[in-house]
Amino acid sequence: MARIVMKFGGTSVGDLDRIRNVARRVKAEVDAGNTVAVVVSAMSGVTNTLVDYCRSISPMHDAREYDHVVSTGEQVTSGLLAMALQELGVEARSWAGWQIPIKTDGTHSKARIVDIETDDLVARMDRGQVAVVAGFQGIGPDNRVTTLGRGGSDTSAVALAAALKADICDIYTDVDGVYTTDPRIVSKARKLNKITYEEMLESASLGAKVLQVRSVEMAMKHGVRVQVRSSFSDAPGTIICDEDEIVEKELLSGIAYSRDEAKVTLVKVADRPGVAANIFGPLSDANVNVDMIVQNVSHGGGATDLTFTVTKGDLARCVKVLEDRKADLGYVELLQDANVVKVSVIGVGMRSHAGVAQTMFSALAEKGINIQVISTSEIKVSVLIAEEYTELALRALHTAYGLDAA
Amino acid sequence: MARIVMKFGGTSVGDLDRIRNVARRVKAEVDAGNTVAVVVSAMSGVTNTLVDYCRSISPMHDAREYDHVVSTGEQVTSGLLAMALQELGVEARSWAGWQIPIKTDGTHSKARIVDIETDDLVARMDRGQVAVVAGFQGIGPDNRVTTLGRGGSDTSAVALAAALKADICDIYTDVDGVYTTDPRIVSKARKLNKITYEEMLESASLGAKVLQVRSVEMAMKHGVRVQVRSSFSDAPGTIICDEDEIVEKELLSGIAYSRDEAKVTLVKVADRPGVAANIFGPLSDANVNVDMIVQNVSHGGGATDLTFTVTKGDLARCVKVLEDRKADLGYVELLQDANVVKVSVIGVGMRSHAGVAQTMFSALAEKGINIQVISTSEIKVSVLIAEEYTELALRALHTAYGLDAA
Repeated sequence: MARIVMKFGGTSVGDLDRIRNVARRVKAEVDAGNTVAVVVSAMSGVTNTLVDYCRSISPMHDAREYDHVVSTGEQVTSGLLAMALQELGVEARSWAGWQIPIKTDGTHSKARIVDIETDDLVARMDRGQVAVVAGFQGIGPDNRVTTLGRGGSDTSAVALAAALKADICDIYTDVDGVYTTDPRIVSKARKLNKITYEEMLESASLGAKVLQVRSVEMAMKHGVRVQVRSSFSDAPGTIICDEDEIVEKELLSGIAYSRDEAKVTLVKVADRPGVAANIFGPLSDANVNVDMIVQNVSHGGGATDLTFTVTKGDLARCVKVLEDRKADLGYVELLQDANVVKVSVIGVGMRSHAGVAQTMFSALAEKGINIQVISTSEIKVSVLIAEEYTELALRALHTAYGLDAA
Repeated sequence: MARIVMKFGGTSVGDLDRIRNVARRVKAEVDAGNTVAVVVSAMSGVTNTLVDYCRSISPMHDAREYDHVVSTGEQVTSGLLAMALQELGVEARSWAGWQIPIKTDGTHSKARIVDIETDDLVARMDRGQVAVVAGFQGIGPDNRVTTLGRGGSDTSAVALAAALKADICDIYTDVDGVYTTDPRIVSKARKLNKITYEEMLESASLGAKVLQVRSVEMAMKHGVRVQVRSSFSDAPGTIICDEDEIVEKELLSGIAYSRDEAKVTLVKVADRPGVAANIFGPLSDANVNVDMIVQNVSHGGGATDLTFTVTKGDLARCVKVLEDRKADLGYVELLQDANVVKVSVIGVGMRSHAGVAQTMFSALAEKGINIQVISTSEIKVSVLIAEEYTELALRALHTAYGLDAA
């Protein structure tokens, strides 16, 4: 007997039949003797409709009113799932965020959970009642409904699992687990049985869209074991857990990529103290997020080339900020390139193994792929390459690191 | 400067353009120096969709979950209207029932309001903030959302007006007021400037569908002046108020009719003490509402004919109950007739005027219309006639009582 949190996303509760399907899955856990809390998203499409309403009525809408409106989608699903469970003879009740309450800070539309009161919930779960919790929402210090930002239901589920000291938080989704890389590109990609929080965090940050970054951070902070699994099959998924739990550590957990990158190079910037601050300060003020930064070898004559990456969406704003300051910054030319991709190899195993980066560089060189920018962290190596090589690079690296399925 | 409550029904907030239109009407009241609370229904169609979801998932659904689901429609509208007002430069915020709170009893899906805390609301309204309140909902003693039953937003508005001691409660709807009778049938029907609570209550009970009976009862109890008016025109509507406020009282306020009637006659029932209880007790147990009752002259030999009316929807159940007890009740024959209509003339003026019923009987007799059952109260006379005479009777009575428009 375990205490578990189950979370179902929008496609898993997309219509009434799927809600009934979810009820059957929950019943199976109850029948197995587990005590269960379920966190649900809005039925697919509902949140988008509500967001569109808000944007249409008021382009610069009040975030408090936005939360009041868009939080209703999850409330509807939670009530319907509670009914569907009752219909199967399972005792259940729905909970809006404010009822538990799930207390958040006051940052409407992207609030952070600060506390969840669980005494009543635990007492009810212990006597067999399933708690069906509306995801994505809480209540702020102003006694108004808050929402946690897109994908916030993952965070609701992990936070609830932490507060309930649940044995596991099962995230049901439309994929059946976390793969060594994107199986749509690399047919030999393998599903991982386990992955560490750190690796999952790097993967999530680097473009693998299985889980929201914040939910993984929260799981790591509170030691919540999370399982990513399919709503539509009974196969076990991938468990995200502490490194200690993984006995047979592999060198790499996987290879991630992100196409949402653009490269900017400032040619012949004056190479003097303070120039980096002069460049990146204004970009930060303009809300441009800078990722990889490389300062190339000096041209001599007190000038250097500076290359960095931003998201594709920020590129135009970034270029405008820098061109407006061209005289001040004293560069000769601004080069931009949106046809790039960032490919990263990730693994806690590389802490204790040398040569991980070298394997990457050799594998890419063998395929004639030029590396434009390199950046590394303790558990990853990222390179920027031309976008046209994405698939070739992923397959080559997957083989080079011995990740291919048998 | 007045304190007013404005209520907009589902068709008045049926889409985003109509919500913007409502915002303009509210702004006009604010610009005129009034302090304003607005009560809104769900956008038309939304509640029906949510109710259908509940019925589909669970035919005998938990009323608490039903309330959790269907109350979201009004929450959405209240947030959108608050945004639309802000967009026009009007300070506004939305309120769910639980936030104010609007406290109700625990009768989920048809709760009654027991208290509304208004201190915060009044303070905000007094400094110019419009309160946009989700209608139809409150919070029960179990800290869960309750709903007030269909049409409950009228009741929300009147209750809020009572709690706020508002000068008037304007109910905006798709008709422009209360008429002397149904203008679709009687072209000479006139819009009334004022009508008493008692008259409106009789009209509402008797089939005029302008306002929910409960909202009128509450307005009468708390002395809330209510105005029924059109969302789509600026013309004044009909004020429902205390009798004292109406200086020029007319004999009649109007003529109502209800087609939702069926007549049942038990022929030759044993005429002995207790027989009425034997008949109506089981009907009451079966949830059959009996309206008009007439016991006809005795046949002699200790037998009498008993005639009464029920709603058309209850007829089959009523007949079954009585046929199952035929031996026990000892009647000879059961006659039923669903082709009947109840026509009622209503007016507080008839308290002080004799001959009101006689005018009715004569006018109907002149047209050759047979009266099947008669019932009277202090301010109304109702007759049951064959349904085919509905239009003829309404026009004849409208003329006979001098109600025709010039």
